[in-house]
Amino acid sequence: MTTEAQTSGRRAAAAPRAADVPRAADPVTGAAVKAADRAHVFHSWSAQGLIDPLAVAGADGSYFWDYDGTRYLDFTSGLVYTNIGYQHPKVVAAIQEQAGKLATFAPAFAVEPRSEAARLIAERTPGDLDKIFFTNGGAEAIENAIRMARLHTGRPKVLSAYRSYHGGTATAVNVTGDPRRWPSDNGTSGVVHFWAPFAYRSPFYSSSEAEEGERALRHLADTIAFEGPGTIAAIVLETIPGTAGIMVPPPGYLAGVRELCDRHGIVFVLDEVMTGFGRTGKWFAAEHFGVTPDLLTFAKGVNSGYVPLGGVAISAEIAATFENRPYPGGLTYSGHPLACAAAVATIRVMAEERVVEQAARIGETVLGPGLRELAERHPSVGEVRGTGVFWALDLVRDRATREPLVPYNASGEANAPMAAFAAECKARGLWPFVNMNRTHAVPPCNISEAEAEEGLAALDAALSVADRFTV
Amino acid sequence: MTTEAQTSGRRAAAAPRAADVPRAADPVTGAAVKAADRAHVFHSWSAQGLIDPLAVAGADGSYFWDYDGTRYLDFTSGLVYTNIGYQHPKVVAAIQEQAGKLATFAPAFAVEPRSEAARLIAERTPGDLDKIFFTNGGAEAIENAIRMARLHTGRPKVLSAYRSYHGGTATAVNVTGDPRRWPSDNGTSGVVHFWAPFAYRSPFYSSSEAEEGERALRHLADTIAFEGPGTIAAIVLETIPGTAGIMVPPPGYLAGVRELCDRHGIVFVLDEVMTGFGRTGKWFAAEHFGVTPDLLTFAKGVNSGYVPLGGVAISAEIAATFENRPYPGGLTYSGHPLACAAAVATIRVMAEERVVEQAARIGETVLGPGLRELAERHPSVGEVRGTGVFWALDLVRDRATREPLVPYNASGEANAPMAAFAAECKARGLWPFVNMNRTHAVPPCNISEAEAEEGLAALDAALSVADRFTV
Repeated sequence: MTTEAQTSGRRAAAAPRAADVPRAADPVTGAAVKAADRAHVFHSWSAQGLIDPLAVAGADGSYFWDYDGTRYLDFTSGLVYTNIGYQHPKVVAAIQEQAGKLATFAPAFAVEPRSEAARLIAERTPGDLDKIFFTNGGAEAIENAIRMARLHTGRPKVLSAYRSYHGGTATAVNVTGDPRRWPSDNGTSGVVHFWAPFAYRSPFYSSSEAEEGERALRHLADTIAFEGPGTIAAIVLETIPGTAGIMVPPPGYLAGVRELCDRHGIVFVLDEVMTGFGRTGKWFAAEHFGVTPDLLTFAKGVNSGYVPLGGVAISAEIAATFENRPYPGGLTYSGHPLACAAAVATIRVMAEERVVEQAARIGETVLGPGLRELAERHPSVGEVRGTGVFWALDLVRDRATREPLVPYNASGEANAPMAAFAAECKARGLWPFVNMNRTHAVPPCNISEAEAEEGLAALDAALSVADRFTV
Repeated sequence: MTTEAQTSGRRAAAAPRAADVPRAADPVTGAAVKAADRAHVFHSWSAQGLIDPLAVAGADGSYFWDYDGTRYLDFTSGLVYTNIGYQHPKVVAAIQEQAGKLATFAPAFAVEPRSEAARLIAERTPGDLDKIFFTNGGAEAIENAIRMARLHTGRPKVLSAYRSYHGGTATAVNVTGDPRRWPSDNGTSGVVHFWAPFAYRSPFYSSSEAEEGERALRHLADTIAFEGPGTIAAIVLETIPGTAGIMVPPPGYLAGVRELCDRHGIVFVLDEVMTGFGRTGKWFAAEHFGVTPDLLTFAKGVNSGYVPLGGVAISAEIAATFENRPYPGGLTYSGHPLACAAAVATIRVMAEERVVEQAARIGETVLGPGLRELAERHPSVGEVRGTGVFWALDLVRDRATREPLVPYNASGEANAPMAAFAAECKARGLWPFVNMNRTHAVPPCNISEAEAEEGLAALDAALSVADRFTV
């Protein structure tokens, strides 16, 4: 058997576990990579002295491995962005070709991969969202979407959900609802947070999905009324909230938000940075709900993050606002040729290899049923939520009370149950996505059935560890 | 003679003009690229209906060309970022190699190009700025630098200069001084703008460089005193302001700012997004002034923009603040492997090919003397300012009064003199950088003497057009 690095196919037909990998990369090199990292790399969202980053030697398809030859099945897709897995040969080749042709060019010009990426994205976005403003990632996409909404409406406020994440720059992090906002929120952002539907932990004491949707809409309508409809530029929502917990909105909710926006002249922004490009089993999650926003933000899956890229898809009406009046936003690398060439190749691969359909099928036939089966056997699983390759397990101490397995924003000893769960996943060769009291099963959209089954088996073992912390 | 696309060397020994290029790319393809651009690409900082983007077919070294075979000498380096010119073969090869190895990996891990890029950058940054937080570009670098400063000091305000540009996201554009801030500034950003030194258009009525430096320092000290030193987290300055006009600060000014920051416990942020990595004839412009900031932002030249990358170099003292306390900022593509591999290759190329020294020499022997010689002959040139490959011509209607050739933030008919100047540059095969009443000569750091001379000849002709608008 060859090592991963020597495997010419995208992934082995079998799904060997860590112990099966016979040859390691050079551990000396791994130690040097780690030492330089600790000396010089300042990491995102971390206490620099308390982290111990794994040195990664390589990756292919749904797997990555370290310098000791330990291999992990990646149930995180990086940070939920490698929708076609690691090192897809066609996208790698497209990047190499574009690098040799024209790696970079300034945004004021028309260049082939920029034009083609915009065209292919516009073909897939819902409704008349046919103009594409490119950024380097999701945060800048949200920054610009909100700027467009404020200038289009002439209004100051933005409404967003408490259970949300929208990015790390000033506007994006203020729209965010999770604790990452707190240190950067000085209360002057013009953002008002409201409660989106979440039937399992209902803010509205509802007893059904349908009631949750109705009550959440009434709550939003009331909030709009009391904030003043004429003061609100935009409502910003993740189509299906991602890091905040993958809460699929009840039928009718997003259509109801659309209707509220129409009634009050509010711009409806759907953040599809995480849900876009196949993650939910559709090109965009908005398709599940038959809703077209005025602005749609994307990043991550657009080119599986092979080169940094994000953007905003813009409705005809909002684009018209900036037809004769300059749009006051921009960036040096807007529509970066290399990033756009990776997007063109990724979208073509997703279409040719029917990756979106594969994500839908894996969700319906393997992940969904498999996770629900785990929930039946493990008392630590309070709820299974999701679609496509976008699933959350809401872990609880007590299924009756739904008390989370760890408190909100827990750290240190208080977070021990989730830490033990994650450690067991890794010991079983699975790299898990863990946030608060949840684990998300968010593998690549083109994960095979065998790989998905392998992941479920590791989760099974790790949930047995979580079960020990239940009442 | 071959077309550019067939030229295997980085650039031809001679510097052929547009008319010498014998074979065009396919104009039909160019028309399609343009049509898709106009249908689907929403451009930075533009009224979408009033722009007419040139379709670019290719680029090499200091030149690019369109689909009709018209070739331009690029005196803009894109947006002042292609410091090693277009398509440097070693950097292209490094991108291709890394793409084949590991195109992307999430930021929480240690990966080789991320570690190595951080190490090489830290080796070159001044003082103890040895920890590198990577972003996708300059705006996010400024966002995070200011976040670090606010959390490190516990203070809210940021002081920055009116004549400045720092990026397009909420915090970055509010720190910016130029009119691009206006539509995004709601007055609640905590930013206070002051006047930095600019002897040619002195806000302080000084009559010498030395006096300008002293008065600017007194103005800043007074502003600090009246804003309240204990309320100020950071002073943010471009080491040499870029798009705002390339005003080299008088000797002693930046050292004086450093001293004010030390006295009041204020974090000193130098923005070297444009000036870093060779642009001024040093690795960082701070070296010209013997000053070490607490935080230094970079982007652009770090990898010549071949892949989007920016970052913040962090002092030991500020890094220590986040040793045991989480740093509340981050992004999916922080330390992107492909971007970092491009940075590693770019820095090695710059060192091996002595690109920084070349920028200094071209400035001293060709661009500086050549631009000053043009100023002697053209009444429209009020002042020549700069160093390395970072030069501004301040164009005037009247040398005696120093009245700008066009009013501040002019557009349409009021901007006709600058438009005529730019059109003549293009007719002469030179793509000029134009902002307000200025043109900047900001070619790649490794431009040849012959290419620089070619650019000066085109400027000579275009300045004759500008001269017609003088009194």
